[in-house]
Amino acid sequence: MNYPNGLHKKSNNVVNYGNRGMVLEDDLNVTNEYYRENDIAVIYKKPTPITIHKVNYKSRDNAFIEKASFKIPSTTDYNGIYKGKYIDFDAKETRSKTSFPLANIHKHQLKHLDSIVRHGGIGFLIVRFVTLNKTFLLMWEDIKQFIKDGSRKSIPLSYFEERGKILELSLRPRLDYLKYIEVMYEKCEK
Amino acid sequence: MNYPNGLHKKSNNVVNYGNRGMVLEDDLNVTNEYYRENDIAVIYKKPTPITIHKVNYKSRDNAFIEKASFKIPSTTDYNGIYKGKYIDFDAKETRSKTSFPLANIHKHQLKHLDSIVRHGGIGFLIVRFVTLNKTFLLMWEDIKQFIKDGSRKSIPLSYFEERGKILELSLRPRLDYLKYIEVMYEKCEK
Repeated sequence: MNYPNGLHKKSNNVVNYGNRGMVLEDDLNVTNEYYRENDIAVIYKKPTPITIHKVNYKSRDNAFIEKASFKIPSTTDYNGIYKGKYIDFDAKETRSKTSFPLANIHKHQLKHLDSIVRHGGIGFLIVRFVTLNKTFLLMWEDIKQFIKDGSRKSIPLSYFEERGKILELSLRPRLDYLKYIEVMYEKCEK
Repeated sequence: MNYPNGLHKKSNNVVNYGNRGMVLEDDLNVTNEYYRENDIAVIYKKPTPITIHKVNYKSRDNAFIEKASFKIPSTTDYNGIYKGKYIDFDAKETRSKTSFPLANIHKHQLKHLDSIVRHGGIGFLIVRFVTLNKTFLLMWEDIKQFIKDGSRKSIPLSYFEERGKILELSLRPRLDYLKYIEVMYEKCEK
């Protein structure tokens, strides 16, 4: 099942936000921070979409949300600008060793990526096969070509190896995905 | 004082989300929906940034946030893509009849807009003078020129009238701000 933003369910029914499950998300947050600090790109993770039901204002600067619920996201989690280009992507982890289950992404997120690319933006997915310790970047154009009519249930690892770019971890930036975007984008310009 | 996303404080210390204060936000949401439905642009309001402290998972599909707090936003509220261009803006209402107080915007939101424009994006503010029933679009370049060294406390109405574009309400789309972006963008291209 999908928990919002890599939350871990604990047995006592309460989620511990201090102990977050999604390492890929942390890698990307640190990387985006590096890009911003070095004025390379301005890319942020969007806040988790929620519906707020009840807020308590204790004082002027002290408001607490007492009841809220998670919303299904309409868009991907990450967007921003790089060299004048609109960048849009989502990041997913899977424990599968053989394929990436498409059930991990909402249909309207795929529709969103399609729409972004149609409007001249750069759309892609970053997928980590946790058990294999491999992270891939796969452009929306390649994903679209694979899923075609929507009857596919998953994208096999072999397709990521063939069409995607493998992202290596390094010190700074931790997961330099823009390096590959640049390469692919220059290809298109020629 | 600033309540996040146009909330209204009620005397009993509880905020009523059904009775939202910011009409401009509604106008923009409806407009962006129109742009998306007609495949003109893909622009969304970002979710309100919060820090979640406690979540209760009642069942598989039923998770409730029991405690969370508002975070100061690092970016503007709206971004997306229009004709291949990255678009980024914030929307503010003021009850002042003479000027827009800069205290209404966080400093890092201004810094964010500056950074966006430096990277080749289109950045602006949409400001509504509620009492005057006038809504303006003012490009970041003009805002920057006015605030200069940061000693300004507000932007006078006259500056909006001189440098900004007045946005008229209409049926569909309700607040067609992209019309003016197009005009200004074409000017720059020449």
